[in-house]
Amino acid sequence: MRQVAVVGVGMTKFGRSEEKTQLELFAEASMDAINESNLRPKDIQALFIGSAAGDWTEGQTIIGGFAADEIGLAGVPAPRFEGACSSGTMAIRDAFIWVASGYYDIVLAGGFERQTVLSTPMNTRMMATGVHSFYETPTGLSFPGVFGLLAHLYAHKHNIPLPKLKESMAQVAIKNHKNGAKNPKAQFQKEITMEDVFNSMMVATPLQLYDCCPISDGAAAIVITSADVARKLTNKPIYIVGLGQSSAGALCNQKDITRVKSREISAKQAYDMSGLTPKDIDVCELHDCFTIAEIVASEGLGFFDFGDGYKAVDRGDTEIGGRIPINPSGGLKAKGHPVGATGPAQVYEIAKQIRGECGPRQVDGARIGITDTMGGSFAAVVNIILKRGW
Amino acid sequence: MRQVAVVGVGMTKFGRSEEKTQLELFAEASMDAINESNLRPKDIQALFIGSAAGDWTEGQTIIGGFAADEIGLAGVPAPRFEGACSSGTMAIRDAFIWVASGYYDIVLAGGFERQTVLSTPMNTRMMATGVHSFYETPTGLSFPGVFGLLAHLYAHKHNIPLPKLKESMAQVAIKNHKNGAKNPKAQFQKEITMEDVFNSMMVATPLQLYDCCPISDGAAAIVITSADVARKLTNKPIYIVGLGQSSAGALCNQKDITRVKSREISAKQAYDMSGLTPKDIDVCELHDCFTIAEIVASEGLGFFDFGDGYKAVDRGDTEIGGRIPINPSGGLKAKGHPVGATGPAQVYEIAKQIRGECGPRQVDGARIGITDTMGGSFAAVVNIILKRGW
Repeated sequence: MRQVAVVGVGMTKFGRSEEKTQLELFAEASMDAINESNLRPKDIQALFIGSAAGDWTEGQTIIGGFAADEIGLAGVPAPRFEGACSSGTMAIRDAFIWVASGYYDIVLAGGFERQTVLSTPMNTRMMATGVHSFYETPTGLSFPGVFGLLAHLYAHKHNIPLPKLKESMAQVAIKNHKNGAKNPKAQFQKEITMEDVFNSMMVATPLQLYDCCPISDGAAAIVITSADVARKLTNKPIYIVGLGQSSAGALCNQKDITRVKSREISAKQAYDMSGLTPKDIDVCELHDCFTIAEIVASEGLGFFDFGDGYKAVDRGDTEIGGRIPINPSGGLKAKGHPVGATGPAQVYEIAKQIRGECGPRQVDGARIGITDTMGGSFAAVVNIILKRGW
Repeated sequence: MRQVAVVGVGMTKFGRSEEKTQLELFAEASMDAINESNLRPKDIQALFIGSAAGDWTEGQTIIGGFAADEIGLAGVPAPRFEGACSSGTMAIRDAFIWVASGYYDIVLAGGFERQTVLSTPMNTRMMATGVHSFYETPTGLSFPGVFGLLAHLYAHKHNIPLPKLKESMAQVAIKNHKNGAKNPKAQFQKEITMEDVFNSMMVATPLQLYDCCPISDGAAAIVITSADVARKLTNKPIYIVGLGQSSAGALCNQKDITRVKSREISAKQAYDMSGLTPKDIDVCELHDCFTIAEIVASEGLGFFDFGDGYKAVDRGDTEIGGRIPINPSGGLKAKGHPVGATGPAQVYEIAKQIRGECGPRQVDGARIGITDTMGGSFAAVVNIILKRGW
């Protein structure tokens, strides 16, 4: 298989889009990525789209073809990938193989969502389609409940007093808001305090409002080419050196959600493929849909021992400038979480970090980064390792 | 790239599933395909699922992981593809590249749907999410309307009196019901007459009830391996020799829907890749969601000149035993159309035809077959050419 590179990235500001439709958001991000790649739309041979909720939010299925047409690509193959919150990086992983195999030289991959057009109750119902409809839906479970249970289980398993764990969880939110305040694309560009977190409303014990990521609109896209093509287009190609994807069934079939097996399988694939280990990673964008999710993911990716992730936050290990900076973009928590766009936006951030283009939130000397996107109740995890190619 | 083969196929009976969920239907089809391949679930390295409507019908997204878990594959990558009615063959085309590239040796691809759990009005609304939500939905357009317009346009363009065209369209329905009556997996196993068609209720002029495919439940799956692996598993491997996929935007951006451009692009890709021409094809399963759709597709695939497709039906060219047998399975019209399962069921039929296992509906000496799956208002077309490998 051929070496594959990211040559251009684009994303919209995340937040509320009152005027732009999901296709218009996608067009904005895509054209930025195409322009940055020194390409024109007619150079793109295929489009890979991640979108989780367009059926509900704008009443639209088969959106791949419409997305292609929106930016002048009508006629290219344009499959849509749906894996709940991991939809976007599923699309990117798939785009990789079409280029690595030699079938295509230049493709576009990305994702989008426009969720604020739904009311909060309808967003809650829509997001809850990501739990198992026969084993979990009848219990009333939705994602805040799943991650509330995870926090209790994590505290119990590692013998952590809940108030202590809640402090560490709050530190995750504080850090990600601090990072988001330095990211002009972030939904929330405002720092928060421990007091803000503890004064916010209870969502699903022990998760309070500031433990939860917001509902967002936005899009992100990347141009992927063979390494040969990349070298002609840019002097800053970024290679995709590791990929992983795994799945899991209903929660009742998962043994221990404090050690997400789908993540362990996926991350191992990505590390093995790249020949790298967690110690080689300079920067990480991971799936902090809830603060506890960041702690658990930071362990699952191999940065910290199981049960040490919450202490690592307290030590500042995951700050920009820390041992392994996590979510310098602000993460889902502060940057926002337009579901289909989330994975591509993680790749956008890692690419920008490796290129040294992140200004006040730059991780010094970042050469290698990993993304981690999780769908449903750990029912899918996708990991991508990116490496400086110059 | 490596040669890729289909080694096993499975499908449920299509029709109404009162007891089995969409995942249980999928499990039935998949286990048949895996057993027929002389494999066990643990041999499968990845799962590629096409599903269009699970969000609406059973309130389930991120179903790939749950589908994998249902048959003992928990942990494998399991992306879901959504391209409306072409979802299932999108998944198969994608499965191809992961094997052709050498990344995987053995994968499972398929699709499913369980639509009869929705009322007819809700099915109509659900299916209508496949038209463009900003350019077409506000006009009230849904698929019977799109294909009614197509029939009028076809009659006008080729100067055919509408009553004459309606007779040829009825012949499509009569032929496909005749074929379906010989298919134990078909939803409708009953022949119909011209009188039945003309006495049926008007749906969207000139389309009457018997010009339209039904709402269905069902699943189909195939096991795809490298040619090397295939030769160890079966003495009847079937090679995937041609693949095409294309897209289109909203109808207002499509020039002439009597010549579906996305099909012309996709079919050309498949023919070019295989080095074959329409004359080489022995049997065809194509997207007859409405009778007029079969006529238009039979031209777009190169079997007949534009404007000759309706005469070809009258001549009996598309009957089993005719020049190019089309939809010997009964097609969407009589076999049924559980959306995500439709493409995989087309591949199932072509594989069975090439193996000579179709009993009373067998196309004598079939060695090469093509599938044609169309999504939305021509917004996606996928074609697959299969060839006897022994």
